[in-house]
Amino acid sequence: MMVVMTPDATPAQIEAVVERLEAAGVHAKVMPGELTTAIGAIGDPEGVREMGLEGLPGVDQVIPISRPYKLASSELSHHEPTTFEVDGRRVGGGETFCLIAGPCTVESAEQTREVARVVAAAGASMLRGGAFKPRTSPFSFQGLGLEGLEILADVRAETGLPVVSEMTSASVADRFADAVDVIQVGARNMQNYGLLEVVGKLDKPVLLKRGLSSTLDELLMAADYVLKEGNERVILCERGIRTFDTAMRFTLDVGAVPWLKLHTHLPVIVDPSHASGDRRLVGPLSRAAAAAGADGIIVEVHPDPEVALCDGPQQLFAADFEGFAREVEAHAGLLGRRLA
Amino acid sequence: MMVVMTPDATPAQIEAVVERLEAAGVHAKVMPGELTTAIGAIGDPEGVREMGLEGLPGVDQVIPISRPYKLASSELSHHEPTTFEVDGRRVGGGETFCLIAGPCTVESAEQTREVARVVAAAGASMLRGGAFKPRTSPFSFQGLGLEGLEILADVRAETGLPVVSEMTSASVADRFADAVDVIQVGARNMQNYGLLEVVGKLDKPVLLKRGLSSTLDELLMAADYVLKEGNERVILCERGIRTFDTAMRFTLDVGAVPWLKLHTHLPVIVDPSHASGDRRLVGPLSRAAAAAGADGIIVEVHPDPEVALCDGPQQLFAADFEGFAREVEAHAGLLGRRLA
Amino acid sequence: MMVVMTPDATPAQIEAVVERLEAAGVHAKVMPGELTTAIGAIGDPEGVREMGLEGLPGVDQVIPISRPYKLASSELSHHEPTTFEVDGRRVGGGETFCLIAGPCTVESAEQTREVARVVAAAGASMLRGGAFKPRTSPFSFQGLGLEGLEILADVRAETGLPVVSEMTSASVADRFADAVDVIQVGARNMQNYGLLEVVGKLDKPVLLKRGLSSTLDELLMAADYVLKEGNERVILCERGIRTFDTAMRFTLDVGAVPWLKLHTHLPVIVDPSHASGDRRLVGPLSRAAAAAGADGIIVEVHPDPEVALCDGPQQLFAADFEGFAREVEAHAGLLGRRLA
Amino acid sequence: MMVVMTPDATPAQIEAVVERLEAAGVHAKVMPGELTTAIGAIGDPEGVREMGLEGLPGVDQVIPISRPYKLASSELSHHEPTTFEVDGRRVGGGETFCLIAGPCTVESAEQTREVARVVAAAGASMLRGGAFKPRTSPFSFQGLGLEGLEILADVRAETGLPVVSEMTSASVADRFADAVDVIQVGARNMQNYGLLEVVGKLDKPVLLKRGLSSTLDELLMAADYVLKEGNERVILCERGIRTFDTAMRFTLDVGAVPWLKLHTHLPVIVDPSHASGDRRLVGPLSRAAAAAGADGIIVEVHPDPEVALCDGPQQLFAADFEGFAREVEAHAGLLGRRLA
Repeated sequence: MMVVMTPDATPAQIEAVVERLEAAGVHAKVMPGELTTAIGAIGDPEGVREMGLEGLPGVDQVIPISRPYKLASSELSHHEPTTFEVDGRRVGGGETFCLIAGPCTVESAEQTREVARVVAAAGASMLRGGAFKPRTSPFSFQGLGLEGLEILADVRAETGLPVVSEMTSASVADRFADAVDVIQVGARNMQNYGLLEVVGKLDKPVLLKRGLSSTLDELLMAADYVLKEGNERVILCERGIRTFDTAMRFTLDVGAVPWLKLHTHLPVIVDPSHASGDRRLVGPLSRAAAAAGADGIIVEVHPDPEVALCDGPQQLFAADFEGFAREVEAHAGLLGRRLA
Repeated sequence: MMVVMTPDATPAQIEAVVERLEAAGVHAKVMPGELTTAIGAIGDPEGVREMGLEGLPGVDQVIPISRPYKLASSELSHHEPTTFEVDGRRVGGGETFCLIAGPCTVESAEQTREVARVVAAAGASMLRGGAFKPRTSPFSFQGLGLEGLEILADVRAETGLPVVSEMTSASVADRFADAVDVIQVGARNMQNYGLLEVVGKLDKPVLLKRGLSSTLDELLMAADYVLKEGNERVILCERGIRTFDTAMRFTLDVGAVPWLKLHTHLPVIVDPSHASGDRRLVGPLSRAAAAAGADGIIVEVHPDPEVALCDGPQQLFAADFEGFAREVEAHAGLLGRRLA
Repeated sequence: MMVVMTPDATPAQIEAVVERLEAAGVHAKVMPGELTTAIGAIGDPEGVREMGLEGLPGVDQVIPISRPYKLASSELSHHEPTTFEVDGRRVGGGETFCLIAGPCTVESAEQTREVARVVAAAGASMLRGGAFKPRTSPFSFQGLGLEGLEILADVRAETGLPVVSEMTSASVADRFADAVDVIQVGARNMQNYGLLEVVGKLDKPVLLKRGLSSTLDELLMAADYVLKEGNERVILCERGIRTFDTAMRFTLDVGAVPWLKLHTHLPVIVDPSHASGDRRLVGPLSRAAAAAGADGIIVEVHPDPEVALCDGPQQLFAADFEGFAREVEAHAGLLGRRLA
Repeated sequence: MMVVMTPDATPAQIEAVVERLEAAGVHAKVMPGELTTAIGAIGDPEGVREMGLEGLPGVDQVIPISRPYKLASSELSHHEPTTFEVDGRRVGGGETFCLIAGPCTVESAEQTREVARVVAAAGASMLRGGAFKPRTSPFSFQGLGLEGLEILADVRAETGLPVVSEMTSASVADRFADAVDVIQVGARNMQNYGLLEVVGKLDKPVLLKRGLSSTLDELLMAADYVLKEGNERVILCERGIRTFDTAMRFTLDVGAVPWLKLHTHLPVIVDPSHASGDRRLVGPLSRAAAAAGADGIIVEVHPDPEVALCDGPQQLFAADFEGFAREVEAHAGLLGRRLA
């Protein structure tokens, strides 16, 4: 941390900061500047932040100079990317592209099976499908629950596709551990720390979605919650952030993909469906994600989106999926990736 | 809902929308305009939204024209404000101002007791104190947990101050029901729907904080989750939102106070400490909240903020609290309110 | 500036940064930390920022540690507030509160005169009124232009109220210098640097509105553009910022008032009308501004807002202005201020 | 426009709205719903908005149901894209990709010539270069001004590359008309309506950058200002928006590309340099722009970015440009585009 004094701070005020730091066991290095004096505080950054030095006379700002995440940092892995397999599909590492597709919500065995066949035939890597749906209003459809998980497990057995599904509560962790291959933590739960610790203890890969208004630093700190439990198979997912513009449902932060590639060793995928909320934009955004270097996408597909129980406008028509997949694959191919 | 067609939509496309609405049991009213035709869809708004009409040829937008929250709406109560007592302190109703104060975190019995005595002497209505602290990084101090709850219960017995504390997990709901008078749901859990349903079932007032990036509509829909369980004692809390400006930790949305007063019957308070992250701003923001018509504030106070284990820079010095309280009380008094 | 190296930066990479800084005449101070090494760059901050050191191997971040504004800084004035008079009304300095009121747009001599009489009778300090209106769409009403300026000058002569009006183009600077007492630079022009330099050269007080999405640092840098031309009579105005929430037109950043009081010597006022876009919120927001320590407000009033040519929904009814003024005055009075 | 009544609005209140609309010559259509009554106002939307009906008793909201831009709308052109040539390079229309490249700022004839040769050799369509630089602080380098324009004109003559440069003031319009081929209006001037009208009258293509915090609707309304002067050669440019996250300088809104393609006939390009502020991200963002369907990019290149006078960290090394161009070209090629 760096403690920056105001231009008119007195020597006694500077000395008082130094004394307080050293009393707390933090080494202090005074650095006089042209306008202001800065004091480097060399020690545990969290500890220094908590000291509340901003309140001392003559202190202007306390500025962090180290990154706040630890285990997710690319330096920890010496810039080696994390890579692992989900039932034979390789995630991360730069040579594959994970095409995860399926309905927003599991509505019935028939609907799920139909989508699964279509996406499997087009080369999808995994099947997505929601059984427990967190909804903004308590009066909206909340998903089939455990029945939905059973449908997913059946369809997995039939098609061989690994399954990704969102877990919203620790109380059903055992059932998820049985039924799905990748446990999704949704955007609204990115800072539900109790849930993160639970999924960190399950022996399953975790797909961690960025919160609607979470910084990239916060996303990596949320990943730290899972990693510190010993679970190293974490996939990060950019899914659109909330901004001032409401032309689209959210704003896809495509720059998050290369930024995360610089700062973390974890795989990074993109959810173009929730980002846009509009199927007409899903193709362009998926191609953009592939071109930006994402390790995959997770996309919603429905046999008949116009009768979908949830998020109809953003789901691709199953009949269009084959053409969509070929376009995305071509852009990923230019970066040397094949479908996982 | 209103379905707005594009200017070049054909009569057949308009008819197709009408047919789809009526097939779903929704009454459709066609309204030709100068440039575009709009179709009113009269029926369950959620149901119409889920139909995904945006995907149909000739459809430009589907616009909601009713408010998305129900139980929290001021119309439901015929514009009568909700008011209730917490151990004799009246919340809501326009004649009282709740001054809730205490340390960010319960660090020890001594620290908590000292603050409680100071704020009680200055006329505080309730004591706040965190036992379970949700922290962005897993490596930060997370609170004393159950031990903290016990300290709060002891200090309540000694001082007679009702206690407000944040519950982060349903697993400790019973302990909270015993130890505290008002259960706080924090900003990061505003959309943790499982938790909302649990607190909705406890027979305790709930202090529901607005999420860092939640719209006011979303705050009221979150309140609906609690209200629908039969718990009508919900206090809403504006605590600063995340914006582009980082001069302060968050941006206090003081306009939320009068806006909420127009649209909901629930009491509204303000948290100036978390909004600003800077004790020098807490006085002005507290006075502004009172002047804007808030039903109270919740503010952090510490005997020695410079050694606080959490959020030191934003906690008021206990020694300054009496003067602070008198200023806020004066502004509330201009609106006809006395301290609860 | 502080150059922060990555944890795995080599000694040679650190040395390369030092050499580059010193070659540019900037003194470099190496500060090894536990995880990372930081290098203090002591010299012109702009110059160091422009060097683009982020691109060098081993460099993680370049962090500014001095404030980017200069002339507007409170340190420059040794924490003495700037204060001046506008035709006998004192602005700034903590003992007065400027109540600036009038129609959004000058529509006619009659309408302007009527509002002026009402606000003068209620103790307003100055009259506002728009002659040149910047409009988002080219097809909206753009104001009466020079004819509007003449009406304002006439009404000033009749009522004795000093006049505030927005100038949108340097081409009419001479006319503004004759007709108005305070020249307003609107939010959309806060970074129109050519315009700022022109108003900096006129011998008139300037009311500088914060841009819709401008940080407070940027507002003070914009003030620097005016101040460096020798014009020291600058009034800053918080008028609501653009955030993710659309419940209100903008989000009033009331915390900007005390923050600016800490960091600049310039007077600070608030525009509650544009912030909310809703007259039902103007009273609460005006009281909040006064309670937070603002030096005044600028508020819209119309004899019959429902037929106003511009921004009808946010203008106060002239008939309600007297009561409104008394409420705001009472809150300002608690801080020891009287109407200017 | 749609006037939505509150659920408890009385028939008399509904009638009062209808009467006011009809008195203003607007046709009103009452549409009773289950919870609320809506009243369609069929007529000039701006006129209805200005009426301020939100203030009437029983009125909840006034909602626009037509798009606020007119001339830029894709419906106006019957979904035919606008396309035109700049000195033989075709812009818009789907078959070409405009690769516009050059230094942030014209620093000298040598530097500009060197970059121009490199980018011309790599197939660039046009040369960019700033002569007048709008800077946040008045104490930063502001560009060479007219001397910079002359350098650009000379380099154009030598290399045959058409030139794009930003005009910040109407006072130099004649000089720009002589020296450059495409006049850029920068993000900070997107709502400088006087400037837009001036460039609308020049017989030159205009590159209009989106404001840092402008909605896409506002971008199209700004384009309307140029189009209504008779200048139909407008290129829109997404250059990153301001959001809550500061990991990158701005957030590139890549979804703006396909959204604009749906809603306007104008060509759309992307500026990855200003969006990211970091050259390590420029390659991925440029590829993403091409994959999303942009008509081109405008990118900064410098012979030696580490000594650049402006925005060094985001400028590509000239030595890397050839490889960069081939990657972007490959992604554009997948969409059937060749370099313009």
